[in-house]
Amino acid sequence: MGEVRTDHLADERRRAEFDVEAMKIVWAGSKHAFDMSDRMGRIVASDPVFRKDNRAMLGRKELFKNTMRKAAHAWKRIIELRLSEEEASRFRAFVDEPAFTDLHWGMFVPAIKGQGTDEQQQKWLPLAYKMQIVGCYAQTELGHGSNVQGLETTATFDPKSDEFIINSPTLTSSKWWPGGLGKASTHAVVYARLILGNQFHGVHGFIVQLRSMDDHVPLPGITVGDIGMKFGNGAYNTMDNGVLRFNNVRIARNQMLMRVSQVTREGKFVQSNVPRQLVYGTMVYVRQTIVSDASIALSRAVCVATRYSAVRRQFGAMNGGPETQVIDYKTQQNRLFPLLASAYAFRFVGEWLKWLYTDVTQRLQAKDFSTLPEAHACTAGLKSLTTSITADGIEECRKLCGGHGYLFSSGLPELFAVYVPSCTYEGDNYVLQLQVARILMKTVSQLGSGVQPVGTTAYLGQVEHLMQCECSVQKAEDWLKPSIIQEAFEARATRMAVASAQKLSTMPNQEEGFAELSADLVEVAIAHCQLIIVSKFIEKLQQDVTGKGVRKQLEILCNVYALSLLHKHQGDFLATGSITPEQASLANDQLRHLYDQVRPNAVALVDAFNYTDHYLGSVLGRYDGNVYPKLYEEAWKDPLNDSDVPDGYNEYLRPMLKQQLHLARL
Amino acid sequence: MGEVRTDHLADERRRAEFDVEAMKIVWAGSKHAFDMSDRMGRIVASDPVFRKDNRAMLGRKELFKNTMRKAAHAWKRIIELRLSEEEASRFRAFVDEPAFTDLHWGMFVPAIKGQGTDEQQQKWLPLAYKMQIVGCYAQTELGHGSNVQGLETTATFDPKSDEFIINSPTLTSSKWWPGGLGKASTHAVVYARLILGNQFHGVHGFIVQLRSMDDHVPLPGITVGDIGMKFGNGAYNTMDNGVLRFNNVRIARNQMLMRVSQVTREGKFVQSNVPRQLVYGTMVYVRQTIVSDASIALSRAVCVATRYSAVRRQFGAMNGGPETQVIDYKTQQNRLFPLLASAYAFRFVGEWLKWLYTDVTQRLQAKDFSTLPEAHACTAGLKSLTTSITADGIEECRKLCGGHGYLFSSGLPELFAVYVPSCTYEGDNYVLQLQVARILMKTVSQLGSGVQPVGTTAYLGQVEHLMQCECSVQKAEDWLKPSIIQEAFEARATRMAVASAQKLSTMPNQEEGFAELSADLVEVAIAHCQLIIVSKFIEKLQQDVTGKGVRKQLEILCNVYALSLLHKHQGDFLATGSITPEQASLANDQLRHLYDQVRPNAVALVDAFNYTDHYLGSVLGRYDGNVYPKLYEEAWKDPLNDSDVPDGYNEYLRPMLKQQLHLARL
Ligand SMILES: Cc1cc2nc3c(=O)[nH]c(=O)nc-3n(C[C@H](O)[C@H](O)[C@H](O)COP(=O)(O)OP(=O)(O)OC[C@H]3O[C@@H](n4cnc5c(N)ncnc54)[C@H](O)[C@@H]3O)c2cc1C
Ligand SMILES: Cc1cc2nc3c(=O)[nH]c(=O)nc-3n(C[C@H](O)[C@H](O)[C@H](O)COP(=O)(O)OP(=O)(O)OC[C@H]3O[C@@H](n4cnc5c(N)ncnc54)[C@H](O)[C@@H]3O)c2cc1C
Ligand SMILES: [Ca+2]
Repeated sequence: MGEVRTDHLADERRRAEFDVEAMKIVWAGSKHAFDMSDRMGRIVASDPVFRKDNRAMLGRKELFKNTMRKAAHAWKRIIELRLSEEEASRFRAFVDEPAFTDLHWGMFVPAIKGQGTDEQQQKWLPLAYKMQIVGCYAQTELGHGSNVQGLETTATFDPKSDEFIINSPTLTSSKWWPGGLGKASTHAVVYARLILGNQFHGVHGFIVQLRSMDDHVPLPGITVGDIGMKFGNGAYNTMDNGVLRFNNVRIARNQMLMRVSQVTREGKFVQSNVPRQLVYGTMVYVRQTIVSDASIALSRAVCVATRYSAVRRQFGAMNGGPETQVIDYKTQQNRLFPLLASAYAFRFVGEWLKWLYTDVTQRLQAKDFSTLPEAHACTAGLKSLTTSITADGIEECRKLCGGHGYLFSSGLPELFAVYVPSCTYEGDNYVLQLQVARILMKTVSQLGSGVQPVGTTAYLGQVEHLMQCECSVQKAEDWLKPSIIQEAFEARATRMAVASAQKLSTMPNQEEGFAELSADLVEVAIAHCQLIIVSKFIEKLQQDVTGKGVRKQLEILCNVYALSLLHKHQGDFLATGSITPEQASLANDQLRHLYDQVRPNAVALVDAFNYTDHYLGSVLGRYDGNVYPKLYEEAWKDPLNDSDVPDGYNEYLRPMLKQQLHLARL
Repeated sequence: MGEVRTDHLADERRRAEFDVEAMKIVWAGSKHAFDMSDRMGRIVASDPVFRKDNRAMLGRKELFKNTMRKAAHAWKRIIELRLSEEEASRFRAFVDEPAFTDLHWGMFVPAIKGQGTDEQQQKWLPLAYKMQIVGCYAQTELGHGSNVQGLETTATFDPKSDEFIINSPTLTSSKWWPGGLGKASTHAVVYARLILGNQFHGVHGFIVQLRSMDDHVPLPGITVGDIGMKFGNGAYNTMDNGVLRFNNVRIARNQMLMRVSQVTREGKFVQSNVPRQLVYGTMVYVRQTIVSDASIALSRAVCVATRYSAVRRQFGAMNGGPETQVIDYKTQQNRLFPLLASAYAFRFVGEWLKWLYTDVTQRLQAKDFSTLPEAHACTAGLKSLTTSITADGIEECRKLCGGHGYLFSSGLPELFAVYVPSCTYEGDNYVLQLQVARILMKTVSQLGSGVQPVGTTAYLGQVEHLMQCECSVQKAEDWLKPSIIQEAFEARATRMAVASAQKLSTMPNQEEGFAELSADLVEVAIAHCQLIIVSKFIEKLQQDVTGKGVRKQLEILCNVYALSLLHKHQGDFLATGSITPEQASLANDQLRHLYDQVRPNAVALVDAFNYTDHYLGSVLGRYDGNVYPKLYEEAWKDPLNDSDVPDGYNEYLRPMLKQQLHLARL
């Protein structure tokens, strides 16, 4: 473009002690994944249709119209460029705007794939793949969310016509929240209580057409609309989360998703021989995606905060020289570097979850259901943990940017607003950790009885050792040994689980006891999940890692992750006697030294995420660090600056200044 | 209105074990304060000009115009109703929308009062009081925030004309952030580096006129505008935070605020005999307001989450009966009740800070500066602690409302977005805690030398006892004794401070040592501040408290506050040996029992805040609990629902569905 660009972060980049290009490949997962993602990112970034900076200025209608425009354009480009499914999915991710298409591809299609019979898949999937229909996933109702069995929408079989009658008997039975439902979707998978004769037969999914394929007008008996504004400005408001009511809408019998259960022509309920555990497969898949998205969202925020912390200077000027970069303050490091380490940790545990999904699928096919409950629980726990930390972490990154982080142009407010519902959808994070706790309590209670704990609970098999082992740390450097870290986390998790199980066993009623202790049980579940992430990070380091200095950086990050957790949850480690107060203090000393090692590499470590400036969408996080002129430029674009004297001055401000308001007393 | 209103929370209110009306007075501070606040709240709520529910739909210009309208109307009503200063301030608070008038009354006027000479006050204050001028507080610059001494704007004295020349020498010297600056203010107190001859004389405040009083157009040499959108939708975007550049603008010499330092006609710099510590007085005042605002913001969020948690039901239906109210889940209680207790705790510590301000002012007048540094530090620390907890607490309350908390109509997203900058302005929360830590380290280092610690650090005088005392708790109920709680918190704070001071003393360079240990030092400061809040709550209980059951409730809340903190920071208490692991576990058992006692009173405890539905601005927090029909109603108001088929369907959606996009590959 002929423009001379200065890299204000060049010094930082020169200081890095490792090969950033090699780290990019580690982050991406493989050379192939890197190349693909890099290419998709650039294509999206260079396309003016996908600009994001104008979102704050658009009203709701224009915002949604713009989203449709982007979705249609993305679809067009995906076809023109002949992108594979994997590429298309990256492409859409880089567009970086919640859209009805997310639910179409992410929930509607998988629901049919997972719960539809072969014939149903053959009928519906080609339409969905070509986007000749747009679908959404309509489960939640105004009055019912976490408890799916409490849904009120009914699907009553009418044997006369061989149809189901879908109905919303109450206000609280209105479908409420489904993304893409409000304005875009032509179809939905609707969850409803099946009624045959006078009998309820549980909740099932039904494919329901909502709008005419001619003119998109809602079909008779269907009331559908948008549920209104949500958190933030642009953020999730590009999504048409919807409300939907049925007034006895009839659909053909074969629109019930019948892979697991069927209703016959005679209206008889039949369970197929396909195991119900099948649904676990889909849930493992969806939650694995969420964990992987957590690492992306967190790494974006960390990238912005790290670069800006290297640009921002405050205090400590000596003899009129420049002030200190705020990234040099230990408090700043202590807030930022554990989040940087967490981004990497979540990335690797996400990779492992991908593997777990494959493993689960294979076992399902081999009718081996033994590891399923554990796999399911661990995915639930990791979804919960990573989304909670990421949501809080984004806001911490915003605060790390001081006042300027509060500007829309920093990108962080919108990143937060768009991210936080991850803590709620696909399972409320507390409800999920209670599921993990349940499995843990069951596992512990069976320990004596010969049942071997599997998968991520396998460590509980060494309960005798872990209940009495002593941490051998004597000097700060001892805390760098993976085996020592691993054992400390295992001892803590085991002892917390056993203590809770023992307390539970003294209670007269197990269900009531579980409820009574549930706040502690959530902590037990979190300790278990943290152990998983630490273990998977350590495992990653045992794999082949190439590139100058790359392994060293990962080792440092792994230690930062583990020791910062250890400090944060020091109470658990001390209360269970897993470590001594002196060892806790040594861990903290070691952590400070690790920060010194991260410091010169920090900017390069976030460069390794390979995010384009378009994707980051942050003036503070710009690759070139040229923050101030761009902040200044952005400000003047606000419509309020269209005129020097604001609209309304004559009506409101001037009369006040000129005392033309009637003064009764002064 | 003839409309029959059912109170969906009537059962909850019947269960309360205390006199809510009496608690309202405790919360308000006095019968007088209650009556006044109640009256102001009602007046604002009943005035249609002050409606808030349409904010999400307004573009930036209309939003700002609407704020001017409200500000002018508020001013008119304040005059018509002949409100006192105190009443007017409550009135504006209930309008509940950030506006330029906040800075006018909250910063511009106090700056002139605090830093202006008597003549300057006589000249400027009457104009400001009558709002014949509108002023703001322009300190922060694009490149300089926390470090005020680093500001770049210059004020050069020109002895020839007896004027100061105000100039912005660089882009980073642009004033940036001042509220009310962008569009509304006619004047500003501008902070700039004073230059006399070739000498710098530190940073001082100058009253500068920015806009013509005739037509509001910026004066020559002045570039002023709005800095653009911030976090959230409405939120703080009603405020015209501004940017301001000076191109050698001349002002009269007597527009430098000269109470503390003066420039003579000859251009000589003179320090007056007014002590510099004066500024502490203003800072104590402003920060005390922020602490009091924290209790208000947190209590609003808690009020919404508590009421909705009593309405919301999920799981646990027995025999087709209603599901369990989510407020009955121990995890929900464990997240919610400590925040409820914190709201009360912050309220009482805020009251005490008001007293402290009076005390400080009296001492200043008596030229007693001995307690000032401590008073200043403690206010800084409490500002930091209460705003951080409140910001996080609002978001936790949002999550406690599940999916529906994410809706704009829940009020919580906007409350969060508008609240979070409190963690940054009036002193970044980390920078502030480091100031507290500095005082603590100094106090500890002087302990041997006969200097008696004063005010909130007085407990450190008992260092010998606190370093070796043993907590006497043997059963869970022992944790209900205030003296035991107080001592545990004192021991923990003392031991952490002493440990850090000792570590610091082994370091070769004290400044570098402080920087190196700063992350730990922040924890030391927080432990100290938590102790202050716990102590002030306990003191409150020693005062006269009237009303059936009121004292009992406050005792429970005080214990919930202390024991939930103790659990959260268990690591500190154990690492310092202030309590044993068994005692920690007993504290946790006691906490669970306390939750059982809070439960039946929870709704009444938030009713005691006496917030109108208008002020709460939340469909989920409605007094009558009639949540679902109102959620449903709100949804349909979104502009997206103006038409069944969304604008853009024909351009974007239809061609996709109809495959009129050119398909290259499928
Ligand atoms: C942005 C967004 C997009 C969404 N998209 C879709 C979609 O496409 N399709 C769809 O069908 N739905 C969607 N949802 C709905 C979402 O799945 C639900 O909001 C979610 O399942 C949580 O349920 P809830 O809202 O009923 O929360 P609730 O269950 O009512 O939670 C309220 C509180 O109660 C607590 N709680 C509930 N049960 C228990 C328990 N047993 N023990 C302890 N505590 C408990 C929770 O922890 C929480 O604090 C979406 C939601 C959002 C916010
Ligand atoms: C909504 C809003 C309204 C405002 N209104 C006004 C107004 O009316 N008038 C006005 O003049 N200003 C105003 N401000 C500006 C505000 O006062 C500053 O943003 C605030 O002082 C923080 O300074 P900063 O932005 O420079 O943060 P920075 O100091 O740049 O902070 C960036 C990071 O560095 C860290 N850091 C900085 N120094 C240190 C240190 N010594 N040790 C350790 N860590 C450090 C911080 O903790 C933070 O994490 C407003 C700001 C906001 C967001
Ligand atoms: Ca808007």
